[in-house]
Formats: sequence, structure tokens, C-alpha cells
Amino acid sequence: MGGLRHLVSIDDLSLADMQLLFAQAKQFSEQLAGSADTCRGMITASLFYEASTRTRLSFESAMLRLGGGVISAADMSVSSASKGESLADTVRVVSGGYADLIVLRHPSEGAAALAAQVSSVPVINAGDGAHEHPTQTLCDLYTLWIEKGKIEGLDVVLAGDLRYSRTIHSFIYALARFGANIVCVPHPGLELPDYVLQRLREEYGAEPVRADASRLGEIASSSDAAYITPKGPHQLSLFTEASGLTVDRVDALYMTRPQTERFGSGDQVAPFVQMNTKAMSAEPLKHAVVMHPLPRRDEISADLDSDPRSIYFKQASRGVPVRMALLAALLGRCELRLEGARAVQQSYRVPEGENPCTNERCISNTEKRHIQPAFRLASRIPLRANCGYCSRVLRSAFVGCSTSRHVHAADAPSARKIRPEHLVFFGDLAAALAHGFTVPRGAVVP
Amino acid sequence: MGGLRHLVSIDDLSLADMQLLFAQAKQFSEQLAGSADTCRGMITASLFYEASTRTRLSFESAMLRLGGGVISAADMSVSSASKGESLADTVRVVSGGYADLIVLRHPSEGAAALAAQVSSVPVINAGDGAHEHPTQTLCDLYTLWIEKGKIEGLDVVLAGDLRYSRTIHSFIYALARFGANIVCVPHPGLELPDYVLQRLREEYGAEPVRADASRLGEIASSSDAAYITPKGPHQLSLFTEASGLTVDRVDALYMTRPQTERFGSGDQVAPFVQMNTKAMSAEPLKHAVVMHPLPRRDEISADLDSDPRSIYFKQASRGVPVRMALLAALLGRCELRLEGARAVQQSYRVPEGENPCTNERCISNTEKRHIQPAFRLASRIPLRANCGYCSRVLRSAFVGCSTSRHVHAADAPSARKIRPEHLVFFGDLAAALAHGFTVPRGAVVP
Amino acid sequence: MGGLRHLVSIDDLSLADMQLLFAQAKQFSEQLAGSADTCRGMITASLFYEASTRTRLSFESAMLRLGGGVISAADMSVSSASKGESLADTVRVVSGGYADLIVLRHPSEGAAALAAQVSSVPVINAGDGAHEHPTQTLCDLYTLWIEKGKIEGLDVVLAGDLRYSRTIHSFIYALARFGANIVCVPHPGLELPDYVLQRLREEYGAEPVRADASRLGEIASSSDAAYITPKGPHQLSLFTEASGLTVDRVDALYMTRPQTERFGSGDQVAPFVQMNTKAMSAEPLKHAVVMHPLPRRDEISADLDSDPRSIYFKQASRGVPVRMALLAALLGRCELRLEGARAVQQSYRVPEGENPCTNERCISNTEKRHIQPAFRLASRIPLRANCGYCSRVLRSAFVGCSTSRHVHAADAPSARKIRPEHLVFFGDLAAALAHGFTVPRGAVVP
Repeated sequence: MGGLRHLVSIDDLSLADMQLLFAQAKQFSEQLAGSADTCRGMITASLFYEASTRTRLSFESAMLRLGGGVISAADMSVSSASKGESLADTVRVVSGGYADLIVLRHPSEGAAALAAQVSSVPVINAGDGAHEHPTQTLCDLYTLWIEKGKIEGLDVVLAGDLRYSRTIHSFIYALARFGANIVCVPHPGLELPDYVLQRLREEYGAEPVRADASRLGEIASSSDAAYITPKGPHQLSLFTEASGLTVDRVDALYMTRPQTERFGSGDQVAPFVQMNTKAMSAEPLKHAVVMHPLPRRDEISADLDSDPRSIYFKQASRGVPVRMALLAALLGRCELRLEGARAVQQSYRVPEGENPCTNERCISNTEKRHIQPAFRLASRIPLRANCGYCSRVLRSAFVGCSTSRHVHAADAPSARKIRPEHLVFFGDLAAALAHGFTVPRGAVVP
Repeated sequence: MGGLRHLVSIDDLSLADMQLLFAQAKQFSEQLAGSADTCRGMITASLFYEASTRTRLSFESAMLRLGGGVISAADMSVSSASKGESLADTVRVVSGGYADLIVLRHPSEGAAALAAQVSSVPVINAGDGAHEHPTQTLCDLYTLWIEKGKIEGLDVVLAGDLRYSRTIHSFIYALARFGANIVCVPHPGLELPDYVLQRLREEYGAEPVRADASRLGEIASSSDAAYITPKGPHQLSLFTEASGLTVDRVDALYMTRPQTERFGSGDQVAPFVQMNTKAMSAEPLKHAVVMHPLPRRDEISADLDSDPRSIYFKQASRGVPVRMALLAALLGRCELRLEGARAVQQSYRVPEGENPCTNERCISNTEKRHIQPAFRLASRIPLRANCGYCSRVLRSAFVGCSTSRHVHAADAPSARKIRPEHLVFFGDLAAALAHGFTVPRGAVVP
Repeated sequence: MGGLRHLVSIDDLSLADMQLLFAQAKQFSEQLAGSADTCRGMITASLFYEASTRTRLSFESAMLRLGGGVISAADMSVSSASKGESLADTVRVVSGGYADLIVLRHPSEGAAALAAQVSSVPVINAGDGAHEHPTQTLCDLYTLWIEKGKIEGLDVVLAGDLRYSRTIHSFIYALARFGANIVCVPHPGLELPDYVLQRLREEYGAEPVRADASRLGEIASSSDAAYITPKGPHQLSLFTEASGLTVDRVDALYMTRPQTERFGSGDQVAPFVQMNTKAMSAEPLKHAVVMHPLPRRDEISADLDSDPRSIYFKQASRGVPVRMALLAALLGRCELRLEGARAVQQSYRVPEGENPCTNERCISNTEKRHIQPAFRLASRIPLRANCGYCSRVLRSAFVGCSTSRHVHAADAPSARKIRPEHLVFFGDLAAALAHGFTVPRGAVVP
């Protein structure tokens, strides 16, 4: 990868990076026509393995407004893929002279991480399955920043489908990093998954507490609201110690549609509460802007479109200047000193054994033939690792050392001493023994 | 909409507008390479909800030749639409910063009118079902203008499928406005529909009379020819008073293919007469240019391609300069004072009740959930209204006033007094009563 | 066609042409950014009747890097074609003002030849079925030229599917023309077809001799290697007279994937030998670069990717500068004096009778309604002709003269006297008689 910068996850950007991008985006939005020499002579490639016209057009508009050129594959799935080509090979070829930057959309989680590994030009993740869609998050944060002048300390209500919306997950992590307070009022059955809450706690130091959202009216009527407030250096909330919070004043209400295309067969969901003029008349929502990643279905009524608080169309249109700033930065064409988030962990290859990632939609499983499993360490005590592609927690009850050939329970103190480069993961002891690993003398394994 | 200019219908342009566009197109065609700064820094979006490569490429070529950029969605139907997004929302987003002009192709009639309503940039209708395709008409008129130096007073023969060809309908209205004389020699069973004849009479003052087309030979052999000649200010024809006209001299023969994709299940059509060198040897066709909107099937023989009267390929190639002129004009980049046709009626929303448009392919029915029905008044006496989207005559035997709550027979004098903003349409009296309307005291309704 | 230059077949370029293109490509590759004014204001059209994202993006990137514009139809098959338009008409329209050059991909063999016939702008063949893909060949030759400094006298091993790979066939003819020595080590069952060997002998003067390829190791283990060495003016090989050649030193190994999509129903093929570090350890391969047209499947192992001899990704990336040079040359925008290969025979129309081309995938059969059969003379004694579109040998046991109305056996001396313009082809005598031809007095026909 060298000095090459990619945007695979919103975590690839530090808070300072994002604020630089926002300032640049604002500048671009004020002089759209004046930016047409920024990327002249450069080319981006849109490689879309699933259709997403909005996202694609937004990136392509951004590049054209910067004076660059675009080569576009709106439906890669019918092409080389059908001749059996791996994603990695396609990226190697396209990054080898065809384009100066790749915008990738792929149904497999972790696809962008893989692409970044093998690409010789910057890669931007334009959505990889249910995993990440960082430019949508950037756009959402930019909208808050423009509308409210800051993000720290804002009170943001998240409503609708908090379970399957990738957009919501990335947004919530980023809000926590910025030190915003988050009120979750999910549609019943579509609550925030436990792994998101766990990651919020462990990686972003944000603590969910139960909240009294009754003053929000309809939108919260059938919901067990949770209030998530950041701890640590960014902590600007006055409510840290509270445990039965009342939601009194909301800065932004972020509504999402049911992600029915990701619903499991058992997901039966009642119709959503519809946000309309009446639902927005609750006192705490008086100054709340209404956001939505679009497309909407019925969860936002057309009668709200003319309400000055409704900014979902503005939010969408801001995707262009935000992506202009990002493209210009990654192409080295504007003066940004992108730092990266220090939090991003190093990725290690799994030296042997089965793929410890059990996520069937992870690129490490959908393109198994072509990919060597990888991981990032999430925690040393207990030892816990995430997939280096899709970020899911790995199956790792037992771990071995590829040099000593010893196997340990993942929560045993001895496990911590294995160097990451030598870590091998096993679902159970039998698998470890089958791979020729042994229990070290004197160790007790369950 | 403000001062924004769209091209939804060919009626949106006055005759003077069209002549300005033709002059500009001619200039562009003479210095194609010299136009590359006209739209520099601007972007058009091609939103195609059905495939039409020719039309799309023609627009995109025009924009590139003007120095602009293009973002292109060649098959929108597989994208956001499948996530349940309304056309209106898509247009709102794309017009909000993605593009400076939208070129829309959609299978639903009236789709472009809807798009123009909600767009914050100019919209060009690149075909909305069987409704309109105004740039094809512009291109046809431009070809006549270039080939014959004028349009007024020309004798134009229309042949083939005059029933289902949207191209023919728009062209015929425009010819009537320009004061050309039209000879219809339809393929049997594919005659001009009555509503087109009615509109020609009522809105364009053109009067069809029976004609003797026998001198045209093969092409008219099995056809009951009708001669349509304009009345009123544009009337330049010498034949106004005639009733048994003989077609002696033709300036242009416009052939069309059978629009089999729009045929109803009952349409059994014999093979078309084929235009070939022999069919073109009839004396009145000696100086007639042969036009065709393409693609052709067998209705024009390849042996005619090298005949100097065959200009259908030239006609297609003229689509580029015509669209260049149109794009430049709507984007405000060339000095045209587009006036609009004064004939375009104001559109009103239907304040309540069912959608009075019964056209199943109208956008007001295909996207029923998202659209409020609208209408334009075609006539006050008797009261007759057209759909504000697809232009079809509305079902309106009875009309009500949304304030007085009275219902009237549409042809009753009392109906004329209702202000357009208050007009409600009913198919029958029962429907009106069911909606709480009453018959005013003393009125007699059938 | 006039002075217009097309690239339908690699034979359209002389050796000098290719070397000029290579020099220009090298120059472009060294100053990619400095070429952005070369084709400013010009437009290419990508007309792809089957998906081939890689090829399309490569051409479009090349045009954008030259400063030109691109209109793109990535999937023509769903568009006008479905309205029944012939390829010829589409090309006539697009070449009439839409674009300054057409890049055509089509599943029918000979489609590009047809397009070149009717186009008013240059046409580049980007693959016509199993027939030709000349820019891939150009790119392969350029890669050899860059890597080895020359092509003459190189020893090139071709492995894998030599039967169905169009790439291999075009490449092999070109290598023969350049005077390279070719070693074929096909996968069993996928040997070079007889008609390719025949053409190599008759048209390029290259003579295959049996070779001992055992020193090549694994790759040649199950293959009856054939060594093809050119004769005539280009002959630089030391081995001309040998008959039991040993392959001692290889300059390049060109691997191909099984073209399973073209396999007949009877083709059962064992898994390919996989090229990997071990297979490449054979002594004669020590300095051999490894090439592959991509996409690969399993025939090249990922462990070879980091080997400095592996240049298949470089090979792919060189497609851009090669296509830049070609586009600039055909658009008249760089100083090349393209000569054409003198070997290209004139094409004649078949004046009457059935289509003598029996290749079902030839455009003359897939668009039978629209196309007049054509041929090129391959040999006068015996009389043998190739299809003017797909280049396959025509069915022509008997030939007639369209003026004398006499029919002759194709190998009879009398057949040679028929002027090409008058040649009519018959599969058997009965067909000739049925068309009103007679056996000349005194002639004996079998």
C-alpha cells in the first residue's frame, strides 16, 4: 500500500481529516464552476458490482466537476466476473493504467479492503454489502456540520431500522467519535445489534443508558429508547452520569427505511411510524433537522417535504461537494494533510488453517479461492480478533502459534504471548489437534 | 419552477423558439469543433428508465461537443426504482447538485411533466411512453427546414403506423402549427386516432378532408388518404376550400415502422407496403425527400439508401446539432430568447376525489402513491379537461366545486362557473354523492 | 471506404505500421498527462453488443487520456437491436455525427468488417465473436517489443487453449509475420485447428515442424509440441532445416485459459496444468516472461504474481497506451503514416445465389436479411475463397459465372477464368442447375 491512501472505512479518517474535508467541500460547493482544473487529466473508474445509480452518479458528477474523466462499469456482475475473474485481478488491471482512482461497490463485505490491498491507485469504498459505506457517513456528518456548525455535543435521534442499516452503524460510530449524543428510537424488532453496542463501548468509549423518550411523541411511542453518550476526551455531554435521561431537545432526527432486502426469513415487521408534520410537532423536535439517507418509502410523508426542517434532499445534494473534496484529497490535488485514524489496527494474514471468518457474505468466503484470510486484533485480554476484511468477530475459541505449534484457549494468559504474525485460529480443540498442534506441557485446556 | 425552462412537450416551444433553435443548430453543425466551450463545466444527467441507446447517445454526444460532461444511467429500472423510490424523489436528488440538466426517458406517459414539476434544473423529455418525444419532432422539423428552406406550406405525406407512433402525433401537431399541409396514407388498421384528429381541429385549427392519393402509387394503394390542411393565421395553403383534393406534388414522405411493441392483443396487421425505388417512381414523389425516424424494419428497402431523396440517415445525424442548440439554450449558454408557446395551458391540482385520469400507463397511475392528480382545461364549453401529466381527456361526466360542495353535469352551464382550482371530477353522480357533494337546489342532473 | 482507415483485422496493419504505433504508444506511456490535447473535441462511441468491461474501459480510458470524449453503450443487445434494427443501420447513424470513431464489440464473426463497409468514421474491432480481436494482439506484440526490444527471432511458447482462443490465432499470425519462432504446447484436445495451420503455411509462409519440448517440464508434459518457424524474408531462425528441434531457450511463455464458453458439447477437457513457481523453474524458462490475456482462472497460480517474469498485469495495463496510439492515428491526430498490410485482399460481393458462408455465427448469417454475402480470393489454383466477413473458407465445390451462366468445378482450369466480380458459389451441381446455370459444352464435371 505504501503511502497510498484509501477510504475503506470511515475509521480510515481522523476527526481532523474529516474537518479538513468538510472545509474543502464547503469551498467547492461555493464555487462549483471554479474547480474544473483540480483533477484535469485524471480518471476515476466506477466499478459497480451491484446497481446503485445514485451513489455512482454522485461520484461521477464530483469527478466531472473537478475537471477529471470517468470510466464507468455500472454493472460489473455481468462482465468479467462471469468469465471467472477474481475481484483482485480486476482491481490489479484497472489500477494499472486505466484509472487513477477506483470507486468500488460490491455485494460482499470486505470487498473494498481486499481491493485496497492489491490496488496500485487509491480505492474508495462505495458500499460493500452490509459492512460500510463511508462516503454516505461523511455526507451525513457534513450535513450536520453545515446545518448546526459543529457535531460535538449535538443530540441526534436515530429512528427506523437500526438493525440492518449499514448507514446507521457507520454513522453511529462516527457520531461517537465526534462526541455527539445519540438517542436510538428503533422500530420494534429492528434494534441496534449487540455487536454494534459492544464496539461502541470498547472501541469508542460510548455508554448506552436507558432514556425516557416519551416527549418525542409518536416517533418514540412504541420504542424502548436508548441514550448513548460518549465518554473520554470528547465528552461534552452534561448527562454522563444520568441513568434515566429525558430527551428534551433534539438537534437532528435521522430516519431510515426498513432494509427489507437484508431481512432474514423470520423478520416480520409492522409498518413504520410515518414522520409527518404532526409527528414533527413534538416540542423537543422543534429545532430538529430531519435527515434520511434516501431512498425513502413511506417513513417520511410528502407533506413534510416543504417543512424547513426537512433537509434530506439537501443532504443528498451535499454528496457531490463531499465527494469532490475526497477525490481531490486522495488524488493529491488539494492541500489536505490526511492523517488517518490512529485507531485503525494493523491487518495480519492468517498463516494457516481454515478461514476463521464465518460470515458467509464476507469476500474471504465469497471469493475463497482467491483470498488469504486476514485479521485485526480487537483486544489482547481476552484475545479477540476481527476479520481483516468484513470486520466481524472471528471464531477463535482456541488459538495456536504457527512456530511453537502449541494451542491455547483464547482466554488463557499464555495466548497473549503469541505474536500476531503467528496466530492461528481454531473453533475447537479437535480442529487444532487435527492441524498438528499440541497442548503445551502443564497447560489445562477446557 | 420559476424562470426555469423545460422541454416536456413540443408545445413548450413557440414557432419563433423553434426557428431560433434551427438557426443555432445550423451554426453548430457548421463548426462542430468550435463549440467546445459553450457548456464547459456543466453536466447533464441521462436518466433512462427504458433503454434507448440512439436517443441517449445523441444527447450525450451533443453535450460533449458543447464541452460539457455527462453522467449516465442507461438502465434506471434496475436501480433505485427497485428500492421503491419514486421518480419525483430521484429527480429531486439528481437535480440538487448532481447535474445542471436532466434528460429523462420513462415508460410512463406524463413522467417528464412530473419531473419538470419537482426538478430544480431544466428537464428534457426524451420520450415518455406513447405520449411525447419532442426532440425527435424538433429534429424532423429541422430536417425539413434544412432540406426545403421552410416548413410553411410544404406538402408532407405521413405513411405507415399513424396510430401508435408517438413521433407521428407530435410531428403532425407541429406541422399544423407551422402551417404545413399533411397527407395521411396510413397502413390499413393503423389510422390516426380520433383524439389526435380532434386535437388537430380544436387546438390547432386544422381541418382534415378526404383526398385522392391515387397518384402516389403503391404507398397509397390500400389506404384511405386524408388531407389535413391548417386554417387560421398560418394558413398558406391554396387548397383550403377544396373537398376532393388530389395529391399532386409531395415535398416530403415520412415513413414509420409498425410500433408492434404498443400493439394491442387484437391488432393483426398485414405486412407494410415497402418503400423502394419503384414505389418512389410515382410522379408526385419526384422531389419528395424520404424521412424515417429509424430504426426501420422492412418498410424502407435497402435499395433506396443510395437514392439522393433518401435522407433518413442525415435526419438521424441532425439530432446532434439540434440537441446541442436545445441544451445550450436551456442551460442559458447561447443567446436565444425562448418564448414558449402561448398555447400551453396552466396545470391545476385536482383538490380531492379519485384520479380522473383513466390512462393506466399515465405516471399518475403507475406511481399513484406519490402523485397528486392534475389537469389542464381543454375547453370551458363543454367543460373538458386533459390530464396534467399524460394529456389524455379526463373522465369527467360530472364536476364538483370543492368549496360549495355542489355537483354539476359537466355540460351544464353552471359547471362553467367553478374556478379551476376548485374543480373535482366524477365519473358518475353516485361517486359525487359518495364524496359528500350535493346537487344544487333547482338543478336537474341526468 | 475511401481514405478512411479501420482496424478490423491485425492484417490491416503492416509491420511498419505496428512499429510506428509501438513507438507512439511508448511515448504516450511516458507522458500520460501530456497527451490531453491530442484528441480534444473528438468523440469515440463504444458500441458493445456483448459485455466486455475490461476492453471497453481500456478504450475509454485511452480516449479520455487523449483529451477526447466518449459515448458508451455497454449493452447494445437490449436496445435498438430489440426493435429489429440492423447493425449496419446503427453504424450508419452513430457514424453520422454522433461520434468520430466507433469501437465495436459484437458476438457475430465479421461484424466489424460489415461496420467498416458502411461507416463514415473509422471502426475499430474490439472483438467479433471467435474471429479477431486485433487490439489485444497489438497489446501482446507491444509487450514483447517493450520487454525484449524486438519481436523478430524471439522464441515464444503458446500454451493452454490453442483451439478456441481468438487471441492466440491473431497473435500467432502476427508473430509469423514478424518472424518470431512459435512453440505450441497445447492442452490435450485444444490443439491449433487445421485451418490456422493451413493459413500459417499459405499466407504467412510459416512451416510447423515437430519439436522436442521435454526440457520445458510440466507445461509440456502432456502435450505433443509443434514448433512453427517462419520461412521467407523474415526468417531469422537458426533452426529452419531441423526436424527434431529441442526447445532450449524461451523468450516468452503465453498462457491462455480454457475458452469454455466456446466449447462444443463434446469437449471434455481435463484440468489445465497450472503455471506456478515450480513449473517456471525449468531451465529453458529462466528468462521467459509469462504473458496471459486475462482474465485467468487457475492456469496461473497466484504464487507466480510476485515473480519478476510475470508480466500479465503489465501486459493488461499496456492496453491503454497502445489504444491511445491507435485512436490518435485513426483520428488523424498524430503523425503516423499507416500503410496497411499489402496482404489484405479485395472484397467482392457475391452477385447472386445462396450465401456460400456456412459459418452460423458469421454476421452474413446472423443478420441474413440485411447483408449481401461477400468474399475474398484466397487462392486461384485451386480456386478457394474466404468469407468477406468472417474469413472462413467458403463452400465452393462449384463456381459459376454470373454473365456466361456457366458452372465449373472449382478445381477445373476453366474456373480460373471467371472474373471475381462474376463469381457465384455452389455447394453442388444441383444447386447451380437450379439457379439456371449450365455446364459449358465439352466440359466434364464430376
